[in-house]
Amino acid sequence: LSIVTERVEQPASVPTSGTVPGFYAIVPAGGAGTRLWPLSRAGHPKFLLDLSGSGRTLLQETWDRLQPLTGPAGITLVTGVAHAPAVAGQLDGLPEGNLFPEPAPRDSTAAICLAAAVIVRRDPDAVVGSFASDHVIRVPDAFHAAIREAVAVAREGYVVTIGIAADHPSTAFGYIRMGRALDVAGAPSARTVEAFVEKPDVMTASSYLAEGNYRWNAGMFIARADVLLAQLAATKPALHDGLQAIAAAWDTPRRQDVLAEVWPGLEKIAIDYAVAEPAAAAGRVAVVPGDFGWDDVGDFAALHGLVGDAGGETAEKSVRILGDADVIVQDSTGLVVPRSGRVVAVLGLDDVVVVDTPDALLITTRERAQDVKAVVEQLKSQGKHHIL
Amino acid sequence: LSIVTERVEQPASVPTSGTVPGFYAIVPAGGAGTRLWPLSRAGHPKFLLDLSGSGRTLLQETWDRLQPLTGPAGITLVTGVAHAPAVAGQLDGLPEGNLFPEPAPRDSTAAICLAAAVIVRRDPDAVVGSFASDHVIRVPDAFHAAIREAVAVAREGYVVTIGIAADHPSTAFGYIRMGRALDVAGAPSARTVEAFVEKPDVMTASSYLAEGNYRWNAGMFIARADVLLAQLAATKPALHDGLQAIAAAWDTPRRQDVLAEVWPGLEKIAIDYAVAEPAAAAGRVAVVPGDFGWDDVGDFAALHGLVGDAGGETAEKSVRILGDADVIVQDSTGLVVPRSGRVVAVLGLDDVVVVDTPDALLITTRERAQDVKAVVEQLKSQGKHHIL
Repeated sequence: LSIVTERVEQPASVPTSGTVPGFYAIVPAGGAGTRLWPLSRAGHPKFLLDLSGSGRTLLQETWDRLQPLTGPAGITLVTGVAHAPAVAGQLDGLPEGNLFPEPAPRDSTAAICLAAAVIVRRDPDAVVGSFASDHVIRVPDAFHAAIREAVAVAREGYVVTIGIAADHPSTAFGYIRMGRALDVAGAPSARTVEAFVEKPDVMTASSYLAEGNYRWNAGMFIARADVLLAQLAATKPALHDGLQAIAAAWDTPRRQDVLAEVWPGLEKIAIDYAVAEPAAAAGRVAVVPGDFGWDDVGDFAALHGLVGDAGGETAEKSVRILGDADVIVQDSTGLVVPRSGRVVAVLGLDDVVVVDTPDALLITTRERAQDVKAVVEQLKSQGKHHIL
Repeated sequence: LSIVTERVEQPASVPTSGTVPGFYAIVPAGGAGTRLWPLSRAGHPKFLLDLSGSGRTLLQETWDRLQPLTGPAGITLVTGVAHAPAVAGQLDGLPEGNLFPEPAPRDSTAAICLAAAVIVRRDPDAVVGSFASDHVIRVPDAFHAAIREAVAVAREGYVVTIGIAADHPSTAFGYIRMGRALDVAGAPSARTVEAFVEKPDVMTASSYLAEGNYRWNAGMFIARADVLLAQLAATKPALHDGLQAIAAAWDTPRRQDVLAEVWPGLEKIAIDYAVAEPAAAAGRVAVVPGDFGWDDVGDFAALHGLVGDAGGETAEKSVRILGDADVIVQDSTGLVVPRSGRVVAVLGLDDVVVVDTPDALLITTRERAQDVKAVVEQLKSQGKHHIL
């Protein structure tokens, strides 16, 4: 295994179309997404699902979306060893060496910064960007434009995040408080980040929307790899040194030995805490506002929003259906996900959520969508791991 | 095939325990029960289901309940040819000749009066009683006592019905208006029937309950076979003569020929209209009040009432469960019928009805239970007969 990268001379500016030389995408593919049980499972997590009915999984859509910026050689997937075969199977054209199987989950800092440390040894001027594998972006062109701006800002030494336009006072996301405009060529909308703020209550979130200078933090970070690693060295030197030791052995016969020795002892910490917030406190984080139909599909209420109204056949049919099994609906609204091949009949229920899989059935409401994780917890506490 | 009956001398009175000599039960086993879809199907109707969780089907419970009155030789089952093997398979001890397969459905008069016409040729003093195969009776002893009274009254020449104590103003049943007390030995509670009244609206039903002399008509009729047939001859002579022609050929090699010739032309009519109402108008119908926990299990709301509260495990678990698959319930009430072996999780729904079978899933509410037949109609109109 070796990472396929091509050393290129860094251009003075980011091209407005085509791939961005020297830009590499890092995609951690992990997390079960328990709020989407029983669609997502520990062994078949959210990123492996087609949640939009497009015929492509969230992982494949992520791959499709990044390729115009990086080409296939510029995307690194970091995933658990258990999921590595499924990930490789879904991504035609992924170079073998661009798939990093993690021996065990060590949170996002280890995943992203190991990839960055390996990449920077091949391309000292590399700009890396981290992107979730299980989010939806409805307007890829607008996404690409935002990332091009972000790369331009990253080349100035900033850690850059994307500030997602908030369309409702969500309490499920952290927020970014934007500061003054930055003057960077090729990044007209870039601004400084004053602070990252934790998930607010709904009153606070509403005030954020009213103030206008707050954006959702979608966990996208773009930075020069050396800047990212220098920030990590300053904040978490042990973690940094461990990752550098693994990266140094990566393209040698010692990789597995060093991985086995070092990886289990690495600190588990999200990159928000290890890199982004310390860098923001030091005034070294910028934000590029993005408005490209982003959704993290965090629960079935969000999924309901993604699925178009099936409508048409009868006037009263106002349930959204994700799947192609027979669904009979009378006097009902909500979401039905028929994935078992069985006939599903729904009569007289408002805002119901029905998720029908071959071995498990969930019935809830949009309002209670966030609480599906409590059902998963109950199943776990009962030892029903086969169904999780 | 021959009906197994034993000619016995009619006793002067009906014994208060043990079988009732000269009394024969006729059990029409038909009707799909579309309001219980997808539990009941055209090919697997309601009477073949265990709806109480007792381990016995409704048909078996009917058999178990009648045997103390008749013994196995005194029960005749009338069912469609398609269901005859299933019926025979469920009833250990049913004499082969006591199973009447109908070539095609011809409603209850043909089914019951053919059996009566065959029985009366063996036992001219026979008293027959017709009992549905798919109702529930919670207190068999009280049922037995009521039937013993009814047989005593029937021997006096009355057509006798059982008047079910109404515990709510149901609009799903016809009612019996009771008249004066009858003076029949062994039947202290028997009264005349002034009239049968059609299913009322809820206001009328409430007034019936307030008046106190109205009872539900559960379609149980007990009469001397010759009285039944004489009433039929008066009301529907062609139907009577057709049935007598078949009965005359029943124990001969010509049975199938006569059946094939006569049966298809028989009038389809419910016994209520062909016998009970004309007899009532002539003052020849009596009623024995019965209060024995009767339920026709007409829909899932009724089934909910039958199933005990699963309760116990957690305080919020207040969904009734009919089945033994894993069911996870949080903040919900209603009924879950898990019959597919899958895990069923219900979160945040009130009075929901979930019926989970291997090839079809129904989700509705107790309030809409009567409208399940509309779902079946929709499936039928879509040509989805495989699921009906």
